[in-house]
Amino acid sequence: MSDLDIYAKQGMGQKSGLGQKVALVLVDFINGFNDPAHFGGGNIQNAVDATAKLLVTARARKWPIAHTRVVYADDGSDAGAFTAKSPGLKTLTENSPLTQFVDAVKPAPGELILRKRQASAFFGTEFAGWLTWNKVDTLLVAGATTSGCVRATVVDSVSYNLRTVVLTDCVGDRALGPHEANLFDMGQKYADLMTSDEVIAATAK
Amino acid sequence: MSDLDIYAKQGMGQKSGLGQKVALVLVDFINGFNDPAHFGGGNIQNAVDATAKLLVTARARKWPIAHTRVVYADDGSDAGAFTAKSPGLKTLTENSPLTQFVDAVKPAPGELILRKRQASAFFGTEFAGWLTWNKVDTLLVAGATTSGCVRATVVDSVSYNLRTVVLTDCVGDRALGPHEANLFDMGQKYADLMTSDEVIAATAK
Amino acid sequence: MSDLDIYAKQGMGQKSGLGQKVALVLVDFINGFNDPAHFGGGNIQNAVDATAKLLVTARARKWPIAHTRVVYADDGSDAGAFTAKSPGLKTLTENSPLTQFVDAVKPAPGELILRKRQASAFFGTEFAGWLTWNKVDTLLVAGATTSGCVRATVVDSVSYNLRTVVLTDCVGDRALGPHEANLFDMGQKYADLMTSDEVIAATAK
Amino acid sequence: MSDLDIYAKQGMGQKSGLGQKVALVLVDFINGFNDPAHFGGGNIQNAVDATAKLLVTARARKWPIAHTRVVYADDGSDAGAFTAKSPGLKTLTENSPLTQFVDAVKPAPGELILRKRQASAFFGTEFAGWLTWNKVDTLLVAGATTSGCVRATVVDSVSYNLRTVVLTDCVGDRALGPHEANLFDMGQKYADLMTSDEVIAATAK
Repeated sequence: MSDLDIYAKQGMGQKSGLGQKVALVLVDFINGFNDPAHFGGGNIQNAVDATAKLLVTARARKWPIAHTRVVYADDGSDAGAFTAKSPGLKTLTENSPLTQFVDAVKPAPGELILRKRQASAFFGTEFAGWLTWNKVDTLLVAGATTSGCVRATVVDSVSYNLRTVVLTDCVGDRALGPHEANLFDMGQKYADLMTSDEVIAATAK
Repeated sequence: MSDLDIYAKQGMGQKSGLGQKVALVLVDFINGFNDPAHFGGGNIQNAVDATAKLLVTARARKWPIAHTRVVYADDGSDAGAFTAKSPGLKTLTENSPLTQFVDAVKPAPGELILRKRQASAFFGTEFAGWLTWNKVDTLLVAGATTSGCVRATVVDSVSYNLRTVVLTDCVGDRALGPHEANLFDMGQKYADLMTSDEVIAATAK
Repeated sequence: MSDLDIYAKQGMGQKSGLGQKVALVLVDFINGFNDPAHFGGGNIQNAVDATAKLLVTARARKWPIAHTRVVYADDGSDAGAFTAKSPGLKTLTENSPLTQFVDAVKPAPGELILRKRQASAFFGTEFAGWLTWNKVDTLLVAGATTSGCVRATVVDSVSYNLRTVVLTDCVGDRALGPHEANLFDMGQKYADLMTSDEVIAATAK
Repeated sequence: MSDLDIYAKQGMGQKSGLGQKVALVLVDFINGFNDPAHFGGGNIQNAVDATAKLLVTARARKWPIAHTRVVYADDGSDAGAFTAKSPGLKTLTENSPLTQFVDAVKPAPGELILRKRQASAFFGTEFAGWLTWNKVDTLLVAGATTSGCVRATVVDSVSYNLRTVVLTDCVGDRALGPHEANLFDMGQKYADLMTSDEVIAATAK
């Protein structure tokens, strides 16, 4: 029996579907997670390109849009267990070029910017409350990396009872094996997998 | 370049190591996540067996021990986005045999029992505070499934700045592909991978 | 200058108003918080009576309704800093008469029941996610005590960006000084103060 | 029967005591919460002065120290229910003089700085995880205002199972009625009330 058969037999992988109000989050599209010399590489540039295209529609439709940046203190006062696993994270300081948004997908005025230090966009941030204030019931997730901050964000999103969609062409990873494995896990357990074009079509009025 | 080479080149996968006080959490070792007819199967029984053996040492050493159960209300009042993806979760009600702990690893008096409805042992529970009260700095994670509730618990654990260890022989999954893929992700980003014997040896005084 | 003048001069105490979808939470209307021999007394019975009356309308209008209970483990495994301040809380165990809901305001099928161990209905529970799932933007708060679990719930509610209303006739406290002082604080900073009749009128369609 | 008698009869107001490792948090000692023309006044300057004196000992003893600032986005993208109650909060932007730390108690290198948008130092921040990383079991709370951000921080602190101390001479409020009322509530339910001198004496080795 294949892995997929096992999940199908147990009734997993159903669609949670789209609700009435979507928001879009761009997880860690900062230079440090695009550049292969740091934490980037793989298909992340493709994800940036697809997201830049999606942003045009997202802004035209006035979806609430949020962007996250990983930022650690210059003096290391907020380092911890996560940076122990990946010490290079500590170079992601407020004014480093590495923590600046990738130019093609940088925030516009009125869009929420969240600093974070952990994987999930929800952890230690006010993202949940911002979604509540904006009456959002469906979260569309773009960003990097699929196997890291995107997945952690998706798990928290469904845990907060948001219908959650991974935009498959708008997420990327430094390595393709984990990218694919995590799309499988998320699609089976936490989120619907859709392309940006599919979401644009499905939310057209 | 292999996936592993990419992670190595980016300085990921370092050891976070063991701190001064460990606790052990058994994630969802309930009948419903052991039985292949529900959400179990694969190598989960092996994980139960290894955990039962580990519990003897854990109790002798008086480690704080916590157990989680997935429990939904009989009337469905707490169902949501997660149960939309896997509707069978709604059968995991308080008095169902499916939500009772697997006999070989059931809680002893004084051990914490947490009901939960989402993937992570931390989400919507008081697990973080219990760890603080017990002065724990290192969390050892056993349970099921590796690609689901174990992984979600591990991500929250490192996010709360606990040194985190996945007990590789004490976690299991319904399907082995996701089991292996998630061990890889967790070892590279969030947790140290150790067998129960390795942890027992490393924490001996 | 009076206290109120100071707040007025600083522009505090504005109305946050009602949104589009209300929910009602009954905080700790359990026997142990009504009985003066335990944690009750004062004007709590009055609050129970007013809430019982409000529930008729709330159910007729199909508002989402949640109820909280304080419940600690029989073996004390989940006691901590809060029970150190008030050791009597540890007697509030699952099957004690003290933790059962006050009969006049007990839950009906389909209403959410949350066990909690801390003051706030949000802390260590999935209340925030349940509100999201029900598309709630406005939380009406009844319960006991005004200076304890009601206030803590209200602070978390506004922090999650819910418009929050304290139902002044539906909250009560063991002592009237703290009751009044906390109504003042909440009205100035976190919530609108309204009677249940005012809310019923304002939400009529 | 006095309010205090009622609390005594119900067994509240016990000491939670000091643990083994303290940390100190300065809540919102920023210009905007000191200046009576904005959100300050009352006895807040006194609290600043006492805290400046305490910091000398705290730093000599190498206690972990954290400072919070309220900071809202320039474009209002993160305003919400809390700012609806007190619209002036929206003027507390990153580069405003109002959000800069009061000079006498400004952070030294290596001390944690947390931006926040809600009342509690824990809400939407990584404060809990930083305390875990520093193995803190006891939180000493200074800052402003007693009836606002100090109280909200104290409630979250005890909820996370930290032994919590309100430094009575190091907290202040714009108005003295709420200051006193909140000291009463906190002392009865959540925290021990001690002066900075008492804490310095009690933690001397």
